[in-house]
Amino acid sequence: MLSFRDPIHGFIRADPLEQALIDSRPLQRLRFIRQLGLANLVFPGAEHSRFSHVLGAMDLAGRVYDRLARASDGLLPVGEDALERRLIRAAALLHDVGHAPFSHSAEDLFEGGIDHEEMTRRILRTDEVRDLFAAHGDGLTVERVIHILEGGKGNDPRHRLLGQVISGELDVDKMDYLMRDNLYCGVRYGNFDLERLLDTMLPLQDPETGDWGIGVHEGGVHALEALVLARYYMFTQVYFNATGKVLELHLNAWLRETGRRWSDQPERFLTEDDISVTAEMRASDSVHARALTRRERFTVAYESREHMTEEEKARFEAVLPTIEERFGPLGLLISHSAKDPHRLGTSRVLVRRTDGTLEPMEEASHFIRHLTRIDRYRVYTPRQHKEEAGTAIVGWLQGALGWRAP
Amino acid sequence: MLSFRDPIHGFIRADPLEQALIDSRPLQRLRFIRQLGLANLVFPGAEHSRFSHVLGAMDLAGRVYDRLARASDGLLPVGEDALERRLIRAAALLHDVGHAPFSHSAEDLFEGGIDHEEMTRRILRTDEVRDLFAAHGDGLTVERVIHILEGGKGNDPRHRLLGQVISGELDVDKMDYLMRDNLYCGVRYGNFDLERLLDTMLPLQDPETGDWGIGVHEGGVHALEALVLARYYMFTQVYFNATGKVLELHLNAWLRETGRRWSDQPERFLTEDDISVTAEMRASDSVHARALTRRERFTVAYESREHMTEEEKARFEAVLPTIEERFGPLGLLISHSAKDPHRLGTSRVLVRRTDGTLEPMEEASHFIRHLTRIDRYRVYTPRQHKEEAGTAIVGWLQGALGWRAP
Amino acid sequence: MLSFRDPIHGFIRADPLEQALIDSRPLQRLRFIRQLGLANLVFPGAEHSRFSHVLGAMDLAGRVYDRLARASDGLLPVGEDALERRLIRAAALLHDVGHAPFSHSAEDLFEGGIDHEEMTRRILRTDEVRDLFAAHGDGLTVERVIHILEGGKGNDPRHRLLGQVISGELDVDKMDYLMRDNLYCGVRYGNFDLERLLDTMLPLQDPETGDWGIGVHEGGVHALEALVLARYYMFTQVYFNATGKVLELHLNAWLRETGRRWSDQPERFLTEDDISVTAEMRASDSVHARALTRRERFTVAYESREHMTEEEKARFEAVLPTIEERFGPLGLLISHSAKDPHRLGTSRVLVRRTDGTLEPMEEASHFIRHLTRIDRYRVYTPRQHKEEAGTAIVGWLQGALGWRAP
Amino acid sequence: MLSFRDPIHGFIRADPLEQALIDSRPLQRLRFIRQLGLANLVFPGAEHSRFSHVLGAMDLAGRVYDRLARASDGLLPVGEDALERRLIRAAALLHDVGHAPFSHSAEDLFEGGIDHEEMTRRILRTDEVRDLFAAHGDGLTVERVIHILEGGKGNDPRHRLLGQVISGELDVDKMDYLMRDNLYCGVRYGNFDLERLLDTMLPLQDPETGDWGIGVHEGGVHALEALVLARYYMFTQVYFNATGKVLELHLNAWLRETGRRWSDQPERFLTEDDISVTAEMRASDSVHARALTRRERFTVAYESREHMTEEEKARFEAVLPTIEERFGPLGLLISHSAKDPHRLGTSRVLVRRTDGTLEPMEEASHFIRHLTRIDRYRVYTPRQHKEEAGTAIVGWLQGALGWRAP
Repeated sequence: MLSFRDPIHGFIRADPLEQALIDSRPLQRLRFIRQLGLANLVFPGAEHSRFSHVLGAMDLAGRVYDRLARASDGLLPVGEDALERRLIRAAALLHDVGHAPFSHSAEDLFEGGIDHEEMTRRILRTDEVRDLFAAHGDGLTVERVIHILEGGKGNDPRHRLLGQVISGELDVDKMDYLMRDNLYCGVRYGNFDLERLLDTMLPLQDPETGDWGIGVHEGGVHALEALVLARYYMFTQVYFNATGKVLELHLNAWLRETGRRWSDQPERFLTEDDISVTAEMRASDSVHARALTRRERFTVAYESREHMTEEEKARFEAVLPTIEERFGPLGLLISHSAKDPHRLGTSRVLVRRTDGTLEPMEEASHFIRHLTRIDRYRVYTPRQHKEEAGTAIVGWLQGALGWRAP
Repeated sequence: MLSFRDPIHGFIRADPLEQALIDSRPLQRLRFIRQLGLANLVFPGAEHSRFSHVLGAMDLAGRVYDRLARASDGLLPVGEDALERRLIRAAALLHDVGHAPFSHSAEDLFEGGIDHEEMTRRILRTDEVRDLFAAHGDGLTVERVIHILEGGKGNDPRHRLLGQVISGELDVDKMDYLMRDNLYCGVRYGNFDLERLLDTMLPLQDPETGDWGIGVHEGGVHALEALVLARYYMFTQVYFNATGKVLELHLNAWLRETGRRWSDQPERFLTEDDISVTAEMRASDSVHARALTRRERFTVAYESREHMTEEEKARFEAVLPTIEERFGPLGLLISHSAKDPHRLGTSRVLVRRTDGTLEPMEEASHFIRHLTRIDRYRVYTPRQHKEEAGTAIVGWLQGALGWRAP
Repeated sequence: MLSFRDPIHGFIRADPLEQALIDSRPLQRLRFIRQLGLANLVFPGAEHSRFSHVLGAMDLAGRVYDRLARASDGLLPVGEDALERRLIRAAALLHDVGHAPFSHSAEDLFEGGIDHEEMTRRILRTDEVRDLFAAHGDGLTVERVIHILEGGKGNDPRHRLLGQVISGELDVDKMDYLMRDNLYCGVRYGNFDLERLLDTMLPLQDPETGDWGIGVHEGGVHALEALVLARYYMFTQVYFNATGKVLELHLNAWLRETGRRWSDQPERFLTEDDISVTAEMRASDSVHARALTRRERFTVAYESREHMTEEEKARFEAVLPTIEERFGPLGLLISHSAKDPHRLGTSRVLVRRTDGTLEPMEEASHFIRHLTRIDRYRVYTPRQHKEEAGTAIVGWLQGALGWRAP
Repeated sequence: MLSFRDPIHGFIRADPLEQALIDSRPLQRLRFIRQLGLANLVFPGAEHSRFSHVLGAMDLAGRVYDRLARASDGLLPVGEDALERRLIRAAALLHDVGHAPFSHSAEDLFEGGIDHEEMTRRILRTDEVRDLFAAHGDGLTVERVIHILEGGKGNDPRHRLLGQVISGELDVDKMDYLMRDNLYCGVRYGNFDLERLLDTMLPLQDPETGDWGIGVHEGGVHALEALVLARYYMFTQVYFNATGKVLELHLNAWLRETGRRWSDQPERFLTEDDISVTAEMRASDSVHARALTRRERFTVAYESREHMTEEEKARFEAVLPTIEERFGPLGLLISHSAKDPHRLGTSRVLVRRTDGTLEPMEEASHFIRHLTRIDRYRVYTPRQHKEEAGTAIVGWLQGALGWRAP
């Protein structure tokens, strides 16, 4: 059995199907797509690719599965060879193959209005991937994997549960990227108690919807809180970093001005990665390409508070056209970073109290309930206009009716 | 003052000169040259570049300097702003700018017979770098940095000492790469006790040569041994890994068959990095390019012991022409991995015993004295010839006069 | 200079005064007082003493001082030998010498109504300690240390600032114990980003009171939040652990039934530590002594939510006399764990925004503002009465007017 | 199932038998016996007890078992509930219950010439322990555990193999104490690659003796070397630390002068631990007791090299009577620290090469073959005689025939 060393998880092992998938073009391509897009320009250590992330997610999927199966009273079969376990590991391994170059940095540029999830499905349905499942799948098929990646909805309650292992409040994607990004960036925000969390996870059936999902027992509430917090901090401190954001804006601006799109055809799509795009960017003399290749990036002229109130937001958006009219011609980029601290309103995470009663995590944790949505605007201009633009924007905001200092 | 987060050293700070150098093209280019060449194909986490390594080396250079200065009885001035301290940090930051794509993997391909050290000097002497020193150097010059990078030989004993901070048995290059490669590869071989080592370092004058060098006091012998060992293990387990070696051989074979050379002119040289070479390699249909881009690499048909005796080596080399004649036409790559466990014969590392006497580390450490040179041959062939070649080679080796099982 | 290895801080160094103090009886006694009292009975690794904690606090005090001095615009002198630096390190080293056996577990039993802070002062004023300052103090005196330990109030604004290094929202006591308890307990709750916090600390003058205190600049708000959170989690998960609490209750019950008090005379007080008390406890046949020495402790019959509302608290307290009347004779222990998540209402921690304005951390951090006070009752009985008592208590609580399920 | 947090191994779980044993007097007593005796007086963090060590050893025993069973081709049954797995975990948990106060520091003082292994057997055969096995053993008996602790010799080859899990070159005792002592001491010497080692372990049958033992496959040789080295470094740097050694000598001297012995009767033996002995020592006015309780210890007047040659040793031993005659009356303690770097000559550790051949680790590892035996004398005297004694001893050694500087 093939095994890999990993800075986060130690040894990661792969069975024959996994090994064949890892060797395939769609997975190998992920070696050339950085997990955090351009963030290594801000956090030099963050040079890791999606490839190591998906290996880590696969490894975690097995561990989460084992815990859930053991606590599932027969709902899920226990054992390394269980079909469901192999299924969830394959899904975790493959869940990111549709990512565009630079990961999330420029993911809106697919042809035909598709998104990276749709591209993932298209890649999985190519002959190349189907053939690997046919040869090594031993009961697993591409369509079963796609069903899980789509959330596992349908008649089998186990599939809904497995769907949440890949995408939910407590999914292996998030668990791996938090730990991994934390390590590679050299920060300390993304820590949570993985062992404790794994130890307290449970499959729970939501009495309101009848759906099965991943919950925790009462003793795991603080571990769950810590996961939610780790994500929140990584967003505020790393993913929404002011410099990182402007780099993304430059990238998108350059891609748009060159009319660049990500093909919606797997064959052509798979030829694109950070390397192909970077090689092209270097040949460009666009101000946005140079911002990235020669570090001539715009700088922050104004930024709102991290958690704008509705009023602050309305005021900024009222002033926005004036900003664009005045500074657009001189060079202007606007970022809007917004993120809910957890997945409000989608499938609920339930907590099972010692007496057997269930409550949503927002009730069990006063603390999760009060986390605030991140909502922040930033205005970037060329360095020489920074002062002028900053002063003007503050003036316009103050001029608006009923203003008080933010 | 600019500061960076680093997975190894925490915060790394840069003064105005350092900051300007970091933003320059030669340093930024190092973001696109992987520290371990192709090793990430074996250790997926090892995606780190020379860029983060040189930041780390710079940081360590300051720490080593502070220790040496404090223990130097006035030989070196103490203090953050000391010219010598700024000099050694600049040298550490710049010491790798001449590296070819893929670091050491293909470093023999410079035009005009130069090596990467000479290219480093040429890059430092470009107007771009000179201008930065002129603007921010505050007493530092490119030529002083080059003098240190060349070993600091000459009349000033302090320069010889500083030269060893960059390149010697106890240099910051090695300290950083061991810790960094260890972390990113996800292994545990490269550990040593940095704090203890820093705490026991001393400037010592070699009574035989009169040269100043970095030594340790008696209490640091074991920390020094651990550093030597960490290097030894990283070579046997990571740098000379069987798969990593064949990838290097394929890379070199492809570069040679395409007549590729690294320019000896800085301007043109600086346009080459892992990205430019990878983009080109993808367009090639050569068996060696495909080995790298499509994972169709040769496999080990035969490998010698890790520490061949002279006799084993002679026997292998006697059989080598036969191997090449028979399997060359089918595809054949031969690796010879050789490394002394420490820098025998060059400048000695001295240990100062409690009673003030000095002895070379090989005498103070029975253990260092007995480390064996790594010396190993490996023969790689296309997978389908592996068995046949393996059997044949063992047969030929046995057939040679006086053979006994290795 | 003496130096120690420490699992948290690496090498810790001591100057001659510190070395003499460390060798003195009051400090050596701390080797025999566990940092977390009886917590090692729950978290087996938590066997560390106050001794290593005060070494760690001393080390951190130097680091915090260096940062504050450098950012203080001359308010505090920079340099290793600055009197104020030596003062704050000595204060950190000595701040815990008045702790009773088992640290906080039984700290209410001092004779004469004094507390452990008063005992600390009395010990510092003994001839033994005064003599060490006279011999090695080089300008430092016991009274200056006591002044800092009392908060540094008075005319010199620097002393108020130094006082907060020892006891305040951002003090070295807390920083060390969080990291240390976290490591030794084997948990992951007490992490915070020490480097980032140190990097963003500032001396700030409160415009309302004119007092100097430790604040952070805007970029450190999240590091500050993480410290507040780490403390919060260590309280909920470790310090207020249900089993740990009952062990404390047994200890106190046994001490009270034997009429044990901690002497208010330093000479006699210093002869008491965990060893002297444990030796005595083993000879006792009291149910409470046996609970500790033979693991026959009471178990939880009822516990309230972690954050009782005022109404829940009032209801429980209304029922409490009934509980005591009914179960007191069978064996009953009640714990009340209450803690504010940060020091509301005492000296404010200010955040300096980029534009120079100041705001209290509760305003800068929505998140700190919303942390809830921990307030929880637990009722313990002998194991055989657990069921009966639990059922009865729930019944009584439900019987109270206007009840609804907690 | 009971579970514990552990700084080394994360969560450690215990089944009902293990839980009952952990709660028993012999195991709880280990909470009061420090793993490293008096070493915390030198390494302040080293306050950990044998109790956490045996929990860790138990946990590792399960992991080693799982690896061996899976690689054993049916020799050992796979699965959490396998009798052999439960047996080896129980043996690891119980292997240290016979330790005297201060662990190895004073282990020669048993009455009746027994050693701590014999005391372990006697304690296991008490009714208290037998009853726990009877109640919860589910097939396990005290005698089976003792058989394993004695090496598992006899007809069943599996028992010989299991015996080595507890005591052999690759035993769980050593693996746990190296990692644990390393962490608590705050040093970095005891690292080895546990994951890699576990991954390469194999049950191998020695062709010479027919015995089964724990070996490694070729890929694990370096991990094995690292374990051997970690042990070697912990001996030279921690366990044989000069100050630690004199503390042990004082302890033994005091115990001998008071006629103290460890009872050979389990009942009485179990009442003794670090606390009972420390309480007694404090009441003593002996110079040796005061050395420990008031830090008035002797200091090093002379120490030999770490690896004496036979000649150096003979010379020292020739001079020893003179030393004792002259300085004995003034106060004199002599330590002799000797340790082979690995278990030469006892059961061999075999390495299985890729081609299936076996060789002893000393042949597979040039490096292990050349490790030197630690053999060092130290002479301690009261501080005021240090200079005089040191000079005299060096003089006497020089005076001996054929001397040359060591």
